[in-house]
Amino acid sequence: MRILVLGAAGMVGRRLIDRLLAEKTIAGETIGAIDAFDVVEPQIAAPEGVEIHSSAGDIADAATVKALVAKRPDMIFHLAAIVSGEAEADFDKGYRINQEGMSHLLEAIRAEGENYRPRLVFTSSIAVFGAPFEEKITDTFLAAPLTSYGTQKAICELLLNDYSRKGFVDGVGIRLPTIVVRPGKPNKAASSFFSGIIREPLAGEEAILPVADDVRHWVASPASAVGFLMHAATMDTDVLGARRCLTMPGLSVTIAEMIEALREVAGDAVANRIRREPDAVIEKIVAGWPRDFDAGRAESVGFSADKSFSDIIRAHIADEAARG
Amino acid sequence: MRILVLGAAGMVGRRLIDRLLAEKTIAGETIGAIDAFDVVEPQIAAPEGVEIHSSAGDIADAATVKALVAKRPDMIFHLAAIVSGEAEADFDKGYRINQEGMSHLLEAIRAEGENYRPRLVFTSSIAVFGAPFEEKITDTFLAAPLTSYGTQKAICELLLNDYSRKGFVDGVGIRLPTIVVRPGKPNKAASSFFSGIIREPLAGEEAILPVADDVRHWVASPASAVGFLMHAATMDTDVLGARRCLTMPGLSVTIAEMIEALREVAGDAVANRIRREPDAVIEKIVAGWPRDFDAGRAESVGFSADKSFSDIIRAHIADEAARG
Ligand SMILES: NC(=O)c1ccc[n+]([C@@H]2O[C@H](COP(=O)([O-])OP(=O)(O)OC[C@H]3O[C@@H](n4cnc5c(N)ncnc54)[C@H](O)[C@@H]3O)[C@@H](O)[C@H]2O)c1
Ligand SMILES: NC(=O)c1ccc[n+]([C@@H]2O[C@H](COP(=O)([O-])OP(=O)(O)OC[C@H]3O[C@@H](n4cnc5c(N)ncnc54)[C@H](O)[C@@H]3O)[C@@H](O)[C@H]2O)c1
Repeated sequence: MRILVLGAAGMVGRRLIDRLLAEKTIAGETIGAIDAFDVVEPQIAAPEGVEIHSSAGDIADAATVKALVAKRPDMIFHLAAIVSGEAEADFDKGYRINQEGMSHLLEAIRAEGENYRPRLVFTSSIAVFGAPFEEKITDTFLAAPLTSYGTQKAICELLLNDYSRKGFVDGVGIRLPTIVVRPGKPNKAASSFFSGIIREPLAGEEAILPVADDVRHWVASPASAVGFLMHAATMDTDVLGARRCLTMPGLSVTIAEMIEALREVAGDAVANRIRREPDAVIEKIVAGWPRDFDAGRAESVGFSADKSFSDIIRAHIADEAARG
Repeated sequence: MRILVLGAAGMVGRRLIDRLLAEKTIAGETIGAIDAFDVVEPQIAAPEGVEIHSSAGDIADAATVKALVAKRPDMIFHLAAIVSGEAEADFDKGYRINQEGMSHLLEAIRAEGENYRPRLVFTSSIAVFGAPFEEKITDTFLAAPLTSYGTQKAICELLLNDYSRKGFVDGVGIRLPTIVVRPGKPNKAASSFFSGIIREPLAGEEAILPVADDVRHWVASPASAVGFLMHAATMDTDVLGARRCLTMPGLSVTIAEMIEALREVAGDAVANRIRREPDAVIEKIVAGWPRDFDAGRAESVGFSADKSFSDIIRAHIADEAARG
């Protein structure tokens, strides 16, 4: 089994590769080789028995993508993307990477011909939905994104469905909730603060909260994200019919509930490191984001997520301790 | 007022131009020039006062589209497309014309810069919806096309919304019902028989009905389609918010009701010219098509359609008589 991971140096990509290397098998087969691709060459300590081929490049370049696909990976995880804030600021770059990158990938797969039909797992986002919406968004609600990033993800979903329907690829698109707690530094995503208000206080630093405490959002842990990817890679796709893209399960929590969980897990001193500094721009963006979902379809085909926000915080603390 | 019509030689395009030339003004302004573009040069008898510039080319060619937009039309109607059957048979051609053509158009408009923001009316289709669906599809139901054509239209809708949201264009997308009675010869659309079973018997010819009598579908007349385009071109788009694409009103009729109306308008001898010859391929395609809609959103912003199927037949008979 040969696996290609695009966006392998990213937050989710790195964890996915850790998990693949820990499992050593997937879908009942031994993992023989992993091709890890990103803008900067992914650094992976290769364990015995699995070949790791790391390389650097740009998915917006068709020839680069074609060369990766020419190795005929049995499974492809496409996680490479620029985040919403950056795609909104640089319109051309967003379409080039987030949409054309996917087109190049699908075309490269199709060009390999009839006897090649790999499983392709694509990370979409709940950003495909935009207000006004139902308080609890169901599986048949329209995709009406309010950002270019969300538009690009929605287009990728449509293409994934069509190429799968035509038999060119065996695709599964998973709409990830906002991943919290994201380790490391804040990034350009407007959602960055959802992780910041947990991560920074736990690290002894002050965090800025740019929105009101009653803002509700849909979140899942990094470990759940990897779990979704593993399930999407191995599930029976016949049950999906022509609708290959699914809203992943998650937790619907308010900022107040998140802070309350932080207080419960780590104490007052930590929770008090959050400083409220409302930012009208971020408030406006976040107001257009979904708050809650009925992810019944994904659940019915075996996807599952975190049970409580305190669990998510505890998992983050354990992760940080493990990484040192 | 300068108007650009892409797909001007098509069934709807020709009628739109007739209507524009008959009106002579639009949105309170005199129509000074019409640029009529299609694969084959549109043949238009120019009346006094309006300049007609006909030209031939391919919207899949970016430079061609750029040259058309460089004339800075105040209003653009984008009707150029290949039909569902052809887009399904030729995957590359479908994407090139139906999707990339739209991308070229949007990019050409954006490239003109900040002080150019024309009204762009785009003809989408109810083919963006695919089974399983609600018996009466509402305005917040997901687009889940079951054809490449529907996928291409859904992508165009997403792009139109995003470019409009960004202020690059003032877009309105109208999801046309199946247009019945389409004059002329049968075409490659799988929906061709919906017109055929009315048009051929009225012309004294036998028509083949490839599906069952209880098949229900969503239709509107050519005149209604032109009415939708005119309203979309002149309406206040502020009321649309970020959702620029609307399901147009129509009539939900069964084949049996259509034949009944034909019998009522033209008599038994005509209605008996329909021969039932079930075609499993067409039946399967049609089973994935929407049957009925609640087009409440479009109606609430002023779009309106035909009142009965016998009216549609009578209008077709009058049209044919007028054209000789
Ligand atoms: N983290 C979240 O909250 C979240 C939520 C919804 C969806 N997603 C999606 O999940 C996926 C993974 O998310 P993540 O948090 O790991 O993001 P990330 O930014 O950490 O990782 C994405 C990776 O893609 C790489 N990349 C960017 N442009 C590239 C290009 N042109 N060529 C090759 N690689 C390129 C980046 O270098 C980065 O390593 C992304 O597709 C993202 O859009 C994430
Ligand atoms: N007629 C219907 O039932 C129906 C239903 C839903 C949507 N629509 C949409 O409405 C629009 C008009 O429909 P119509 O019935 O007049 O279709 P039509 O086929 O009669 O007209 C489309 C025109 O586009 C032109 N065209 C095709 N490829 C082109 C290219 N590469 N460059 C330039 N021009 C090109 C064709 O030559 C044709 O004249 C189309 O976008 C169609 O998809 C039609």
